[in-house]
Parts: sequence; C-alpha cells; structure tokens
Amino acid sequence: MFTDLNTIGQQARAAARELAVLSRAQKDAALHAIADALQAQQADILAANAVDLEAAREAGTSAALLDRMLLTPARLEAICADTRSVAALADPVGEIFDARELPSGLRLHKRRTPLGVVGVIYEARPNVTVDVATLCLKAGNAVILRGGSDIQRSCAAITQAIGTALEQTGLPVAAVQSITDPDRELVRGLLRLDQYVDMIIPRGGAQLHRFCRETSTIPVITGGIGVCHMYVDSTATVERAVPLIFNAKVQRPSVCNALDTLLVQRAIAPQLLPAVAAALAPAGVDLHADPEALAILSDAPGAADWKLTPAVPTDFGTEFLDLILSIRVVADLQQALDHIATYGTGHSDAILTNDAAAAAAFVNAVDSAAVFVNVSTRFNDGGQFGLGAEIAISTQKLHARGPMALTELTTYKWVGEGDWLVRI
Amino acid sequence: MFTDLNTIGQQARAAARELAVLSRAQKDAALHAIADALQAQQADILAANAVDLEAAREAGTSAALLDRMLLTPARLEAICADTRSVAALADPVGEIFDARELPSGLRLHKRRTPLGVVGVIYEARPNVTVDVATLCLKAGNAVILRGGSDIQRSCAAITQAIGTALEQTGLPVAAVQSITDPDRELVRGLLRLDQYVDMIIPRGGAQLHRFCRETSTIPVITGGIGVCHMYVDSTATVERAVPLIFNAKVQRPSVCNALDTLLVQRAIAPQLLPAVAAALAPAGVDLHADPEALAILSDAPGAADWKLTPAVPTDFGTEFLDLILSIRVVADLQQALDHIATYGTGHSDAILTNDAAAAAAFVNAVDSAAVFVNVSTRFNDGGQFGLGAEIAISTQKLHARGPMALTELTTYKWVGEGDWLVRI
Repeated sequence: MFTDLNTIGQQARAAARELAVLSRAQKDAALHAIADALQAQQADILAANAVDLEAAREAGTSAALLDRMLLTPARLEAICADTRSVAALADPVGEIFDARELPSGLRLHKRRTPLGVVGVIYEARPNVTVDVATLCLKAGNAVILRGGSDIQRSCAAITQAIGTALEQTGLPVAAVQSITDPDRELVRGLLRLDQYVDMIIPRGGAQLHRFCRETSTIPVITGGIGVCHMYVDSTATVERAVPLIFNAKVQRPSVCNALDTLLVQRAIAPQLLPAVAAALAPAGVDLHADPEALAILSDAPGAADWKLTPAVPTDFGTEFLDLILSIRVVADLQQALDHIATYGTGHSDAILTNDAAAAAAFVNAVDSAAVFVNVSTRFNDGGQFGLGAEIAISTQKLHARGPMALTELTTYKWVGEGDWLVRI
Repeated sequence: MFTDLNTIGQQARAAARELAVLSRAQKDAALHAIADALQAQQADILAANAVDLEAAREAGTSAALLDRMLLTPARLEAICADTRSVAALADPVGEIFDARELPSGLRLHKRRTPLGVVGVIYEARPNVTVDVATLCLKAGNAVILRGGSDIQRSCAAITQAIGTALEQTGLPVAAVQSITDPDRELVRGLLRLDQYVDMIIPRGGAQLHRFCRETSTIPVITGGIGVCHMYVDSTATVERAVPLIFNAKVQRPSVCNALDTLLVQRAIAPQLLPAVAAALAPAGVDLHADPEALAILSDAPGAADWKLTPAVPTDFGTEFLDLILSIRVVADLQQALDHIATYGTGHSDAILTNDAAAAAAFVNAVDSAAVFVNVSTRFNDGGQFGLGAEIAISTQKLHARGPMALTELTTYKWVGEGDWLVRI
C-alpha cells in the first residue's frame, strides 16, 4: 500500500477544522462509541495482535517486549474503561481567560482552542493508540499516529475500530489516522509535515526523542527521560527518609520518575546510608557508591548482604530504569544543587529535610519539571497530580512542563471585540 | 576572533542559574544601569554604527534598510526610555498558580520560572539588541544574540555597554552575549546548541523563520508572517467599515498585522467596494481585485482615479508589506472561512458585521492568533493588548500565541510538598 503523507496531512487538517467546533456532547458520544467498537471488534483486534506477536517471537523479541506488545481481553477492557474515563473529564476547549478591557475600548480575552493536528510517534505498546487518540479527540484535535513497526497490525485493527465509531457518531474518520506502512522513511516525512501538523509527541526512549528533535520541523515535546535525584540533608529524619527512598527506587524501577541518584549530606551519611542499604537489599537493588559512601557502607554491619559496587563516572547522569541506585556524599546543599544542575534532566528531583529554609532554597534553585519536598519522585504523574490523564511528561520548558493532559493538548486564540475600532 | 559556541552556551547556562534566583530589585537595578551605560557610551555606539552604515552604503544597501540600521542620539534615547519602561513592568517570576491539595496529601502548585537561555536571531535593527536583552533579563533569562552581519559593530558596542552595566550591578556579564563573528556557520551552530539553549526566537522574514525551523534542534517561536484578512458581511455598516479597512491597510503597511486581503459578501459588495476604493485611492493603494470585484469597481464612478488590477492567484496568500490590497467577493461566511483556512497564516483576521451570530461563528471557526470583531487587524500588538512590551508575535500554537511579552518568556515548575509521602 502506498502511503501519501500529504493526503494524510490534508485530511487531518480538514478533520481538525470540524473537530474544533464540536460540542462536548458530540465528542463524548464519539469516545463512548470508540469503547463500544473496541469491544465489538475485540476478536479482530486480538487476532491482529496475535499475528504481530507471532512475527515478533520469530524475530527473537525479548519476553519483556513481547509482554508490552500483548493485548488480552482484560487489557482491552481496561483500555475501554480508560476511554470512558476520558469522556467523563471536563472539556478544556472554549474556556475564557485573561479577559480585559483596554483604554482604547478593545474588549479582549483569550479563548482555549484545540492545537489542531497532533502527530504521535510511539513504540511497542498498542494501547497507546487508544490513549492518545481519545485524549486528542477530547481536546478537539485530529491525530496522526505512528506506532512501532512490530505492532502495525494491532494499530491498524484498533484504528479501524475507532474509524467505525467516528463514522457512526458523525465525526470525520480522518480525525484519527494511523500510518501502518512499515517504511521507516514515513517517520521522517511525518516529522517534516509542518504544513499540516502542529505538534509532535514522541513516546519512547532517549534515541527516539533525539531523532525527533534533530529531524522535525514541527515543535516536538521532549520528555520522558528522567535522571531523578533525592537529596537528603542533615536535618532529615532517617526513619522517614528511608521509606521514601525505597518507594522512589523500588515501586516501579522501569519508569522515568523512578529514583536514580541519592545525594546525602556528609553529616547524616553514617546514619542514613546503612539504613538505606538494609532497606533496599531485600528488593535486590545494586548500590553504585562514590568512595565516601562506599567506605561507610563497606564497614557497616550487614554489608555482606548488600550489592555494593564502586560508582564509575557514568553512574551519575544515567537513567537506570532498573534496580540500580547511584549514591554520592556531598558537603552541603550547594554541592547537591551543583550535582543536579550538572547531571539532572529536569524531570523530578526531591529534597528530604526538616529545614524549611533548605527546602525553599532547593525549590528555588532546582530547575526541573517537578521539584518535591519530602515527597517521593514517583508522584510526578498526571494521575497523581489530579489531571485525570497523561499523554506525556515534558522535560522541555516551552508550552508545558511535567505531566501533559487535556489542557496541555490545547492552545488559545486572542479574541478582540470593539465598536468599529481603528488603531490611533 | 575565534568564537567557541560551546563556551558561550556554558556561560549562558551558568548565568541563567544565577539570574533565576535574583530579586526584582536586582534585575530592575541592572536595567536602569543598562540605560545609563548606553547613554554614557553613546559616542562609542554611534561611532560603531557609523562604520556599519558606511560599509553597508558601500555594499549598495537600500536607503530603507540603511534607515533601519541607523542609530541616532534621539533613537538611542528612545531605546533607553524603553529599557526603563521594562524595569517598571511587573516581574512575572515567582508567581504561584494552579495550587491544589490532592487526596494523597500532596500539596501542589505551579511556580512561574525563567525559561533559562533564550537565543535570538535578528536582522538589520540594532535596537533589537537592547529590546531583547532587557526583556529577557527582566524575565530572569540569559540571552545569546545574533544580529545581522551588517550591524555587527553596532551590536558589539551595545553589548559592551550592557556588559559594563551588568558588571556594575553584580549580575553575570554572560547574561547577555552577542555573537559578532560574521561567520554564518555560527547561526547554524547556535540553532543546534540544545544542550544549553531553551528557546530560539527568530526576528525577520519568512526565509529566516523557515531556516530556523528546518535547522534548529531547539524549540523555535515561529511568527511574524501575517497574511491578514478582513471579511465584511452584508450586515456591516459601510461608513463604519471603510475607516477600519483604511486603518488596517494604510496606517503602517510594512508590518505583519497590516491587512492583505479584503473578503466582501456579495450582497454588500456594490455598496462597499466603491467606498473602499475611493478611501484608499488617495493613499496610493493598489487594488488587486478578483473578476467580480473588478467588474463592480470598473463600472463605479471615480474608477478612473483608482489603481485597479485583476488579481492573479498569488495575490491571495501573499503578505504584501506594501500598499497593495487583494479583494475577493464571496457568497457567504462559509466561503470566507474556507478562504481564510486556505490562505491565512494564523496571524490576525477580522470580521466586520452587525450580526452577532455571524461574529460568533467567525470567532469560533477562524484559527488565528488574534481574531477580531469590528476591530482593525493592527491591534494585534503587545502594546495594544496591554502587555507593556513585545518580543515577537507568535503564529505557532505551542507555548504562546500572538504577542509575546514577559510572561511568555517564562515557564513554570511544579512544586510538590508533603509529610514524607510515598506513592501507593
């Protein structure tokens, strides 16, 4: 099948014009119809997914990746429930804000509007197709999806079901389009379709993000890469700090807001570090400790049961996505701030302290999407922040920072009204 | 002189960390010191500008461009006054918004912060050096400036004066750096300095904007290109519409919010068009009319005094920046909306009408940075919108749309506080 990106772009733009003026009820009806269609077409979707999985298995894909690709009736049911939850969220479009009347007589306000056309490039998880499509639709955007080449059949079947639902509810079918042609040049082409596409969201690893940033002529939301730090200062309560460090490192080590590096103020290191090591050891965490931390830990009772390794330079500034924690002893807050400024990725960083002045200084100085005081880094998440959903976590500074949900999928227009006003 | 972009980037980033935690008083003191220094070093600045102008004159630069390059004592005085006005504006940094407490106990808010490092690439006007530097400083950002190669000596002298002022007031001199090495490869290098630079603002023509979008790995604010429309529907009051059309086209034809295309509903065309032509003729406006408009205008009394030309296809979708107006007769609102969707650049578009429903439909459907009802397109401007300043007019949809001032030079961080919270 020959894929004509230009046609896809034109159709998406035309669909976006229709979506922009829909009522909330029309959009919500389409979302419920999508959930219904996904359930009705479950057999086709699971069959397509089975073919994708079979091909991936033959190609020697790892068990972990196969599991991320897998759809089951239960997983599909969860996806449908999520879709109905998105329908229940408030519609951000049409909100009026920053209203003012100028001395000239100009009556001015900002009105929240859809972005237009969103391009999303993702990897192995077919459920992203639905997540992204429903959030974009709810915010009034058309979307062009490009899933990983190993899940193209699953994506095609899901997009087919979505298209049925759109048609049934009178929405333009081109509101959700998937590029399922495996030709990789199409990704490059999508990234340069700036005539039609307003925003690109990559969902994947650092390499995908860099490729998008380097190739795209469309604004790209960079994110997802979190080298996350916790700084424990000398005033912290050891028995309260340890559970936070455990939670941040162990609860879900494979995600971007998991802890990577523990910075410990020298004065508390002898008390804190052995307690941390003792707590993390049963979970199987590898500790990559700088010389000072290593000296403290090696001499502590119980050290024989811990996985201790001397830290190498690359242990700082690395997102482990695994049960590994790098540890460094620092003299003071300033040294911790310098470390984070040097090695951080601006994702999630926390201070554990009982000193309000230190907390304030940390919050002021650390330039990350989310800065926490006595809170696990795992809280940097759309659900935990009460946004009701999450399409990405941005670590860039333009447009949106941190968890992106419906409002972050919109822009605004200025509306100016007057009594036949000419500029003097 | 060898220019090391990497060093410039590192120094800017280090300066940005210092600027981010300055008080308003410290920043304002620096701005006043900059105004003082520009006045104190006026002789050096004007001498450098004279050398730039002499070289440009020898190279055969047009009189219009030479005038844009020219600095005079009066212009420098106006620049200093603008600098003091920026000091008088409110400081956007530190504003707390979207505060909430989540059921988990997480106390969350957004705090407005500087973007970090802003790169600005501009063309012939040396005053942009000061405008941009002062707005960036006030919002707590470091800035890397790259003026056109023909004004490098002027930029160097101005940056020198700014540096003196920064030093005197204890701010990092690297907060404002100019790349004055004429090597054009440095522009490309600056656009790929994503390790250090958070945002690129091009200030210039369509070609510069496209080059930045195509080359940059840093988010680029696209803007400034305005193909602006006015749609006059059949309910409009002719004698009130004509002055708005005149204002939008004639007041300052060389700028981006000037009117390019007049769309007239068929029913009012016989009354409106001759009145428009009669009003615009004394100002020397060329009318490029579609066949229907041309037929009406050619037969009208006074036509002999008007500059009438049949419109060619490129007359629609062109930003004239000159005393030219393209005119098209349309059947109705829908045809006007389709025209604007096809040919507009999302900058400034207006409807002139007495029909509230038509106004509402126009505002809903037109996807531009500023949409006006019975207001001249010339109002799309930071000053007219009450923002106190303007660094650019964005026509893209991410981050900021329309006039960008201090707030648009900031981002936010999420700050989460809690009583030693772990995620469940």
